[in-house]
Amino acid sequence: MPEKYSRRSALGLASATAAAAALSSTKASAADGYKVSLQEGQTILFQGDSITDCRRDRKHQRANDPRGLGSGYPAIVAAQLLSQHAELGLKIHNRGISGNKVPDLAKRWKVDCLDLKPDVVSILIGVNDIWHKLNGRYDGTPEAYRDGYYALLEETMTELPDATVLVCEPFVMRCGAVTDKWFPEFETRRAYAEQVAREAGAIWVPFQKRLDMSLNDAVGPAYWAPDGVHPSQAGHGLMADEWLKAIAA
Amino acid sequence: MPEKYSRRSALGLASATAAAAALSSTKASAADGYKVSLQEGQTILFQGDSITDCRRDRKHQRANDPRGLGSGYPAIVAAQLLSQHAELGLKIHNRGISGNKVPDLAKRWKVDCLDLKPDVVSILIGVNDIWHKLNGRYDGTPEAYRDGYYALLEETMTELPDATVLVCEPFVMRCGAVTDKWFPEFETRRAYAEQVAREAGAIWVPFQKRLDMSLNDAVGPAYWAPDGVHPSQAGHGLMADEWLKAIAA
Repeated sequence: MPEKYSRRSALGLASATAAAAALSSTKASAADGYKVSLQEGQTILFQGDSITDCRRDRKHQRANDPRGLGSGYPAIVAAQLLSQHAELGLKIHNRGISGNKVPDLAKRWKVDCLDLKPDVVSILIGVNDIWHKLNGRYDGTPEAYRDGYYALLEETMTELPDATVLVCEPFVMRCGAVTDKWFPEFETRRAYAEQVAREAGAIWVPFQKRLDMSLNDAVGPAYWAPDGVHPSQAGHGLMADEWLKAIAA
Repeated sequence: MPEKYSRRSALGLASATAAAAALSSTKASAADGYKVSLQEGQTILFQGDSITDCRRDRKHQRANDPRGLGSGYPAIVAAQLLSQHAELGLKIHNRGISGNKVPDLAKRWKVDCLDLKPDVVSILIGVNDIWHKLNGRYDGTPEAYRDGYYALLEETMTELPDATVLVCEPFVMRCGAVTDKWFPEFETRRAYAEQVAREAGAIWVPFQKRLDMSLNDAVGPAYWAPDGVHPSQAGHGLMADEWLKAIAA
C-alpha cells in the first residue's frame, strides 16, 4: 500500500494532505444521499475504456457532439440529460479509450480530464486491468489497481476541488471471454474500486449489482453482455438508467 | 388523388378493400388511446431517412445489434425497451437509409420491411421529399408524397395485417438549411402525413409538436437540430421520449 493511501486509512481525514482536506469538505454534502445538483453551464465528463468509448469518433471532440459521444451509456445519458434539462446548457464529453487501464488514464488525465475542467467526472475502469493480466500483456496486481485508482481520484480532487466524482463499478457477466480464471481476482478488484470510491467520497454507481439483479431464468448473462465484457444495447440501457439513478437523490 | 386513396376517403372503411378491412379491424383496439401492447418475441422495425439511419453500420443487420441500430432515437428507444422489458426478448431493427424519400422506401419495402415480418413498424419520412425538391433534385409534389405514403401504408396493412404502424411526424427547426422557402409547403406535407396516418389507423408520433413545445427564450431551434433537419443528441433524446410516450397508453 503506498504511503499516501495508508496514511489516509490509518489517520483519517483530519490529518490528511491539503488535497484530501479539499476533497473531504467538498464531498461532505454529497455523502448525504449522494445527490448531484446539476447547475447551468456545467461540464460532465465520461472517462473509461471501450465500454465508455463505444465507437465514439475521436475527431469530434466538441461537447454534446453526437459523433463524439459514441453509442453507449454516455450517449444515452447525454440524450436524456440534454433533452430533459435543455435550459441548463450542459456540456457533455466522452473521453473513454478502448483498451485503457488505470495507468493509461493516469497518463492522459491532464489533457483528457483536468484540462476540460469538468464539474462531474464519471469513471469506469478496471476490466482491462485484469483481462490484460490474464492474457499476459500486463502485470498489475489488484493492489496496483487500487492504489493507482486512488492516486487518480486524489489528483482529480486536488486539481478540481469542486468536482463531483462518480466511480462506476467494474462489471463482467459470466459468459463469453469471462471464464472461471477471472475469479476470485475480479471480485477483489471490484471490492477495491468500491473501497477507493468510499475513501475518496465519490458517488458509487453499482453496475455489477444492477446487472446481477437483472439475471433470471429467462434472461441470461449474454443478454446483457454477449462476450461477458462489452454490453449489449440492453446492457447500455441498464447502465444509463443506473447512472441516472446514482446522480438523483 | 389516386383511385385507392379517394375511394377510402369518399366511402369510408365499411366499403373499402380487403386490405383496408383487415387494417380497420386490427387497428380498432389501437385507436382506444393508441396503446401498443408489446408481446414476447415481437419484432420492432424503424424505417426512414438519415434521421433514423443515424450512422448505423449496414453490415450489422441482426436484431438488437448495437452497430446496426445506429446512434439516434431508434438506438435510445431500443436501449430502453430492451433493458426495461428483457423478459420479452424483443427484436429491434433499424433500416433507415440516409437521403430516402417515400418512393425510395417503396422500392425497398419488401426486403427492408415486409420480409422482416415486424409486429411494430415505425416510419419517419418526408424531409427529403421537400428538401430535394427545393434543391432541384426531385419533382414530387406534396400530393405525390401523400399518395405515395398512403400506398406504402396500405401495402403494409395488406401484407402484415396484424402489425401496428406508427407514422412519425416529419419535422424541421427554423435554422440552418431550413429557410423561409420551405414554407408553407412543409406545413402542407406535415398535414398530409397526419391525414395519411389517421386514414390508415396508424399511431401518430407528434415530433414537430413536441419540438415546438420545447422552444423558449433560452433554448432555440439549433439546440434541437443545428442544421434544422438532423437532430442533436438532445433532439434524439426528445424524439425517443416522444416515441415511447406514443406507444404507452
